[in-house]
Amino acid sequence: MTVDLITVDDVEAAARAIAGAVVRTPLLPAAWAPGLQLKPESLQPVGSFKLRGATNAISRLDPEQRARGVVTHSSGNHGTALAYAARAFGAPCVVVIPETAPDIKIAAVRDIGAEIIMVAPSQRAERAQRVADERGLTLIPPYDHRDIIAGQGTVGLEILEDCQDVDVVLVPVGGGGLASGVATAIKARRPSAKVFGVEPDLAGDANESLAKGTLITWDVADLIRTSADGLRVPLSELTFEHLHARLDGIITVTEAQITAATARLVQRSRLVVEPSGAVATAAFLFRRDRMPQGRTVAVISGGNVDPTVLKAAATA
Amino acid sequence: MTVDLITVDDVEAAARAIAGAVVRTPLLPAAWAPGLQLKPESLQPVGSFKLRGATNAISRLDPEQRARGVVTHSSGNHGTALAYAARAFGAPCVVVIPETAPDIKIAAVRDIGAEIIMVAPSQRAERAQRVADERGLTLIPPYDHRDIIAGQGTVGLEILEDCQDVDVVLVPVGGGGLASGVATAIKARRPSAKVFGVEPDLAGDANESLAKGTLITWDVADLIRTSADGLRVPLSELTFEHLHARLDGIITVTEAQITAATARLVQRSRLVVEPSGAVATAAFLFRRDRMPQGRTVAVISGGNVDPTVLKAAATA
Repeated sequence: MTVDLITVDDVEAAARAIAGAVVRTPLLPAAWAPGLQLKPESLQPVGSFKLRGATNAISRLDPEQRARGVVTHSSGNHGTALAYAARAFGAPCVVVIPETAPDIKIAAVRDIGAEIIMVAPSQRAERAQRVADERGLTLIPPYDHRDIIAGQGTVGLEILEDCQDVDVVLVPVGGGGLASGVATAIKARRPSAKVFGVEPDLAGDANESLAKGTLITWDVADLIRTSADGLRVPLSELTFEHLHARLDGIITVTEAQITAATARLVQRSRLVVEPSGAVATAAFLFRRDRMPQGRTVAVISGGNVDPTVLKAAATA
Repeated sequence: MTVDLITVDDVEAAARAIAGAVVRTPLLPAAWAPGLQLKPESLQPVGSFKLRGATNAISRLDPEQRARGVVTHSSGNHGTALAYAARAFGAPCVVVIPETAPDIKIAAVRDIGAEIIMVAPSQRAERAQRVADERGLTLIPPYDHRDIIAGQGTVGLEILEDCQDVDVVLVPVGGGGLASGVATAIKARRPSAKVFGVEPDLAGDANESLAKGTLITWDVADLIRTSADGLRVPLSELTFEHLHARLDGIITVTEAQITAATARLVQRSRLVVEPSGAVATAAFLFRRDRMPQGRTVAVISGGNVDPTVLKAAATA
């Protein structure tokens, strides 16, 4: 299979398309970890980087498509992000949500004003496709989409704007959209910088895939073991090919390391982060032997954390 | 008494002096409170806006003064900020801390590398002055100082850069340095915008002072009743005169309103904030009858919160 990879030009076009519609997050020096700077995407209005890709994808629809609207299936950050981006463009939005999703996430999508369709978890992809077909909506998947990857890549461009001489960039890997986009931007504009994906040991499918040079999909029953609930998803062929071509490697972290990094970010950088958002910081703190020394940026992908987890992190 | 007020030129000079040494914080739209944007100074490396004033004050010392060093007395955010700023300039720093200060705050100053002198609470001002005299250090107070006020005012310039048509700016008032500086910048560059100080009912000394047109000092035993521990300090003659000349008014909030705003910021904007940092947001949420409608910015002054308070805010 030949996959056409996105280029840094696509990412730069995305940056122009989303300017003003997403927060231009700063780099925050971590005073407690010399050499580390944080890129806190948890500060986006919906609490994650997903707003970048969703906004870019909707911005690229023609007026007629936009008037008809968009649909996705998600129980997590992408659904909220698409609903928020659609509202900003005045586009109708439908989010297909599995009945097992927590009430708080359903409420977040509803508060933004999107239409919600509840289904059995196994039926969500199929149902979203059927809604798209029946109503003429455009289906916008969470990461298996060039416009989504280009949008997430704007995180990489901003890192370079704020830290031209960055040496190492650490990015969480779930479906791989964020890491694909960031690696595309960084490796094109500063080839000497190293870009590493980071994932939990317990959801190390990207690590295994890159090691074997082919897309390996883990069983859902294995992926759900990690506390990093945003990273419990497989790569797609499209994101695998981007990571394979552009990442310098994958670093995996343990659950205890994720928990410790989450606490450090809450207590010492005053950021509310979710465990998925803390994996890159965990790699800097505990797996530094796996990366070159130098000016390092860890991307914090999101902050939509369970209150119980946050309480534990406040005093851990 | 005639007091010479600072001007917006002083604030602009401060902005040039501190560029790169402090975080350029973004404005964050509060998706859950339409019309409100947040200026999160909790994201500064030391967790509060105090880094701006401290950095500006040290930048204005001549090389000889800087080589001798600086001293202050503080059990809170100013001590940490001065220690951090001094380290950045290679200046020695002494912080006189009352024996009653919590261990966590003492550790924060020590971690940055400042010298610590522990004293009985009643002796701190006198001891800091004596250290300054004996060792030739420059005493840098937390707010009663023109360079400090000018530095804090850079928050106001940044608000205008990011939101040229802002209508209302809400700023916490403790000693009044932040509000003095922000009001100076905003009223000079956008006179039509309204700037309100916000303080707890239980530490409403600035409110009473402005109402009576003269500096009123509350008893410490009264000030300590509020949960907003950063705002338990009196105005100085210098900050009173700035607020008297430049604020559009003071709004006070209850303890319950502060607690509710703290929880909202933690849960819905994913910011770890201290109660003092939440008072401006509380005014927007609960005292909106006291201000004009329009594009509103609430300054979040800091995020150094007690873990117990944070845990409560996570689920409140």
